[in-house]
Amino acid sequence: MENNDFISLARCAKKASVKAQGLSSKIKNAALEAVAKALEINKAKIFEANREDLQYAKTLLNNGELTPSTFNRLKLDENKMRDMVKGIIDISRLDDPVNRTLLARELDEGLTLYKVSCPIGVLGIIFEARPDVISQISALAIKSSNSVILKGGKEAKNTNKIILDIINKALDTVEGFPKNLLSQIYSREDVSKMLDADKYIDLIIPRGGNSLVKFIKSNTKIPVLGHADGVCHIYTDKNADIEIAKKVVIDAKTQYSSACNTVETLLIHKDFAQSEELLNAVKNAGVELISEPETWHREYSDLKLAYKYVENIDKAIEHINEYGSGHTESIITTDDKAAEKFMNLVDSAGVYHNVSTRFADGFRYGFGAEVGISTNKTHARGPVGIDGLVIYKYKLIGNGQIVKDYADGEKQFHHKDLK
Amino acid sequence: MENNDFISLARCAKKASVKAQGLSSKIKNAALEAVAKALEINKAKIFEANREDLQYAKTLLNNGELTPSTFNRLKLDENKMRDMVKGIIDISRLDDPVNRTLLARELDEGLTLYKVSCPIGVLGIIFEARPDVISQISALAIKSSNSVILKGGKEAKNTNKIILDIINKALDTVEGFPKNLLSQIYSREDVSKMLDADKYIDLIIPRGGNSLVKFIKSNTKIPVLGHADGVCHIYTDKNADIEIAKKVVIDAKTQYSSACNTVETLLIHKDFAQSEELLNAVKNAGVELISEPETWHREYSDLKLAYKYVENIDKAIEHINEYGSGHTESIITTDDKAAEKFMNLVDSAGVYHNVSTRFADGFRYGFGAEVGISTNKTHARGPVGIDGLVIYKYKLIGNGQIVKDYADGEKQFHHKDLK
Repeated sequence: MENNDFISLARCAKKASVKAQGLSSKIKNAALEAVAKALEINKAKIFEANREDLQYAKTLLNNGELTPSTFNRLKLDENKMRDMVKGIIDISRLDDPVNRTLLARELDEGLTLYKVSCPIGVLGIIFEARPDVISQISALAIKSSNSVILKGGKEAKNTNKIILDIINKALDTVEGFPKNLLSQIYSREDVSKMLDADKYIDLIIPRGGNSLVKFIKSNTKIPVLGHADGVCHIYTDKNADIEIAKKVVIDAKTQYSSACNTVETLLIHKDFAQSEELLNAVKNAGVELISEPETWHREYSDLKLAYKYVENIDKAIEHINEYGSGHTESIITTDDKAAEKFMNLVDSAGVYHNVSTRFADGFRYGFGAEVGISTNKTHARGPVGIDGLVIYKYKLIGNGQIVKDYADGEKQFHHKDLK
Repeated sequence: MENNDFISLARCAKKASVKAQGLSSKIKNAALEAVAKALEINKAKIFEANREDLQYAKTLLNNGELTPSTFNRLKLDENKMRDMVKGIIDISRLDDPVNRTLLARELDEGLTLYKVSCPIGVLGIIFEARPDVISQISALAIKSSNSVILKGGKEAKNTNKIILDIINKALDTVEGFPKNLLSQIYSREDVSKMLDADKYIDLIIPRGGNSLVKFIKSNTKIPVLGHADGVCHIYTDKNADIEIAKKVVIDAKTQYSSACNTVETLLIHKDFAQSEELLNAVKNAGVELISEPETWHREYSDLKLAYKYVENIDKAIEHINEYGSGHTESIITTDDKAAEKFMNLVDSAGVYHNVSTRFADGFRYGFGAEVGISTNKTHARGPVGIDGLVIYKYKLIGNGQIVKDYADGEKQFHHKDLK
């Protein structure tokens, strides 16, 4: 795509996002239902495109250019298709995040301020393999009145293309629905152009591995929502219940060891009496224990766990704030005061007491849909639901009020919040 | 300052910010009272340092290196000093923005999720001239449990130094208050290091002119809260009340023409019958009217107003979304439907109906204190109060829950929101 082509696509997306701000919940939900139905009806075409991609991906797999897990995520079957369709219907049932009145305040008689939620604008989504991301993000964008420009992995090109074509054709049948809300780019060159287009793109959401996220964060001025690393910790305090400690550490490491919320480092209070029992249980669960890792920053994403004894809870907190990634950490203790201290002073998106770090997830938190997990310190942190895709504007309504009257003291603000 | 020196300062700030998360409202308010008192007691010293700065600034003024308005903002007198002290007391009376429970949800029996507000961490504040920014930002940081690293203009160096020294000495007397929460840097080299230090600095807030803000936005990966431009618009609809139109446009242009929320472009519906009367009134108020500006992006910050006739409201909205800066825009109309359309489809932080754009201000909105005005599309938009200095974390409390039980279907989430 020529540079001008990308810019004109981005301008169209921006215009569509403005139009989408005015859409009613009814139109948006009708659109989601039309999309779900169209995907269901056209699934044979999707499977066909997916088979083409799988054939190409197999050569990449054989060349070692694709990992087996990425290959597996690429494959769509009846079950995944059913989940995709169900996911869209689930999103249609969420409350509309747009046009919520967050504050209504009379500044003075006849001068009323409203803080109202509204879409962010244009989202750039960059993801790898999983073609189900297309339908999920499209549904979230429709529901939250945002435009999206999607960029999937080349290994899923045909599947991604047909899915978005089907979605856009379905949207064309919905009266009043703007054109160009959802679009797709395919080349690395276009990704570079997107990362440069801070005039048009308001937020970038990378969904993929560490190196993808790091690359994006280093190559754009546009805000990025996501996380590069998930170096999660469990700290077993002096007064820990050994049964809880064993259960939680084993779950956090073995239940799905390549997830970002899996535990990577176990810190143990030096006076915890049953530390040997804990370490043996973890080892017996098939986990390789590493007492002297090359670096405490490492995300293993594997059945490997670094561990270390610490002097006290303060040293544990210090270690986590120094080497952690701000994702999710858990303390195992029967001492509620210690737990409170840990949860207040550990500077992470999730701070847990006596539970597995694996709970860090939008669906488990009850958000209905997950945009991603963020380790940012602004806008949205932790598992991000659809609320992370909106911002707000201030509407001020009066009948000729001017600032001069207030500056001169002729009028005074009274700032009364309205129900 | 050597690079290592800056990094060690930033590390200390980060550690202080962690400690500050645990501070009670009582300690923070005691700290604010101690600071207010210390500034009051030591004002003679502050005036003395300010006189030194003014002497140096006078040579800059004579050389043309400083504008008269910057020179005027540098000067502290009894009135400004009283306002500074009152500002700190006002901030002490705000609700504590930290440790608010934003959501409490039982995910399952005995497994409860809390979303709790917390400080962002370390703020980098870069500002020009006005030394009263130091006390205001310091007070906001204390109240919101954030660390700050301040960088003021060289013309205010002595004043800034003595003010922060007095504040930090006062904080030393407050039991339990962490050291190094507030620090200051003085050189441009340190600013560069700060903009590079994304490991330590969580948010940059520039308070100053367009070129300062643009420079910062282009030179850091750290999120920046603020606005570079304030190109505000007023659109006079076909059905506008001429008296309101005259009053509002004149106020928005003349009440303080160098403010960021002053109007720069007037759009007039081509069928508005009294457009000549409106333009004459504006001209008679001392405003130079510009019908063919070099660019519609221009922020005059002066008694100059670009104007243009438009075909209809859609063209007005299009013009604003294309040439505006997303700051504040107002429609003058007696047609509520048109006003609603304008407020929904104009993509700006403030969208007004029949009022002056000059109302875009944290104090006028009743926020008690203003961090700045943001044209960002994420985190905080429009006038930002102390709430813009916090984010949240998720606390999850249980008694040994593991994800495996839910994945295997042995347990189910029930997601009950608690009061």
